[in-house]
Amino acid sequence: MTAADLARVRDWMTGLQSRIVAALEAVDGGRFGTDSWLREAEFGGVSRVLEGGAAIERGAVLFSDVAVAQMPPSASARRPELAGRSARAMGVSLVIHPRNPYAPTVHLNVRFFLAGPSNLGNDDCWWFGGGMDLTPVYPFEEDVIAFHRHCKQALEPFGDQWHPRFKRWCDEYFFLPHRNEARGVGGLFFDDLGEPGFETSFAMTQAVGEAFVPAYVPILARRKDHHWGERERAFQLLRRGRYVEFNLLYDRGTVFGLKSGGRAESSLCSMPAEAHWRYDWHPEPGSPEARLYSDFLPARDWV
Amino acid sequence: MTAADLARVRDWMTGLQSRIVAALEAVDGGRFGTDSWLREAEFGGVSRVLEGGAAIERGAVLFSDVAVAQMPPSASARRPELAGRSARAMGVSLVIHPRNPYAPTVHLNVRFFLAGPSNLGNDDCWWFGGGMDLTPVYPFEEDVIAFHRHCKQALEPFGDQWHPRFKRWCDEYFFLPHRNEARGVGGLFFDDLGEPGFETSFAMTQAVGEAFVPAYVPILARRKDHHWGERERAFQLLRRGRYVEFNLLYDRGTVFGLKSGGRAESSLCSMPAEAHWRYDWHPEPGSPEARLYSDFLPARDWV
Repeated sequence: MTAADLARVRDWMTGLQSRIVAALEAVDGGRFGTDSWLREAEFGGVSRVLEGGAAIERGAVLFSDVAVAQMPPSASARRPELAGRSARAMGVSLVIHPRNPYAPTVHLNVRFFLAGPSNLGNDDCWWFGGGMDLTPVYPFEEDVIAFHRHCKQALEPFGDQWHPRFKRWCDEYFFLPHRNEARGVGGLFFDDLGEPGFETSFAMTQAVGEAFVPAYVPILARRKDHHWGERERAFQLLRRGRYVEFNLLYDRGTVFGLKSGGRAESSLCSMPAEAHWRYDWHPEPGSPEARLYSDFLPARDWV
Repeated sequence: MTAADLARVRDWMTGLQSRIVAALEAVDGGRFGTDSWLREAEFGGVSRVLEGGAAIERGAVLFSDVAVAQMPPSASARRPELAGRSARAMGVSLVIHPRNPYAPTVHLNVRFFLAGPSNLGNDDCWWFGGGMDLTPVYPFEEDVIAFHRHCKQALEPFGDQWHPRFKRWCDEYFFLPHRNEARGVGGLFFDDLGEPGFETSFAMTQAVGEAFVPAYVPILARRKDHHWGERERAFQLLRRGRYVEFNLLYDRGTVFGLKSGGRAESSLCSMPAEAHWRYDWHPEPGSPEARLYSDFLPARDWV
């Protein structure tokens, strides 16, 4: 782990952010705003945010590179011994909430942590994490299969063991225990990736990040003009209430970001523009809304 | 503490729920639905919920009486030694989100905990808690003063020391650190109330609960037909996003209820029907929206 390695990770991440924004703008037709911010002299981030687009109701693609004075427990659930140490954290994080209820919400994150007092030089104390997952309202089976296929293909060059593991991890992580229901149809989630060595771990993280555009953008392009009406909008807004519940109650990054004095606007970029709640709402049996719960949310193998 | 005392607390709480519902129905013109639920043989609750009323967009007045197998840390921040013990918990809890942006959201809670393996007989291990607080969007100073005056008057018969203490506790509790901003204009909050003895503690809790109708219902009646337009609605929905943030990130009852396997629909009754988020939104200087932040949210003495 050298300073040059750190720069490579950073350069890849800022490039990924630009490529993703460009691909999303091409589909939406609108432009993501740019909000650069600094925390201390050398660290900071660039938030790219689009609100009120033709296809994207609210979406944000964030890059940040921050010095962490005290490593949060959330940074590494598997390495509690590092809690409290200083660290450097870099990442790209996005959530896209499309306007059309037939176009799924999507989330991507890739991140790199380097722990230790020196912030450099201790090879034992760095790791990658990330993943992406899809949260449809009215799902198309072909979209879900295509998304998972891209997830699988991204990891295939590194061996057959990774995809099942990261897929299951995703199903377990994006789950609302209080509703006993998945946030969406999953994808990939991984953390503490370092065991294959720096080059391979970085390459795997790059593969996941670069898989985002081919995995998601065609789905958005296909569904953004699908006919929808009030019924679909109403269900979409209730489902977005669940998204809010997950992120504010359980999502490690969001909760830590907000409770640790992080930049609140960045942490809250994952919120939808609008969310609804209704008391004890249940879909009508046999309805398209019920199909989401019966056929899509329970974890299953899609590829 | 006898079984008869427990029954008195319960009877008062169910009566309070009915009186509050009747007073709110009289202003709204609509009817609260009734949803009775049981958990185990003898414990359960009654949820009274009104959605889509003329004055009340979404509101719920809940009574519950539950056996708690393991006391949560949230039940008594001051008595950590009780965490893990069995307990009985009774309470009335309400949140009313009016439709009109000039009518404030309000929250009330009164609760009684009895801790211990036997659930009865240990005089050291019971306490009352509760309070009420107001969350206006476009506040009227006279409403805020009247609300705080009722809060103060409710506690005056018990001595001058209580109101300042419970008022400050409320300001401290209903605060969003990630936004460095109060949830609303406060009111009362108390917990672990037992030191004055059972009769006085119960009487104080009753005084707070019974103050709700005179403190709030006239405000709702006064403001429910105030003229409003899209601008006011937009700001109301952003403010409701903050309400969601507070309840899912910080509110002890909500977070514990959802994470402990409690009844999710009850815990989520405090959610508004609708909430909005926008990136890095700030009110225009000098606007009525800015006045909320400058003149009302910073904690101050209202009476």
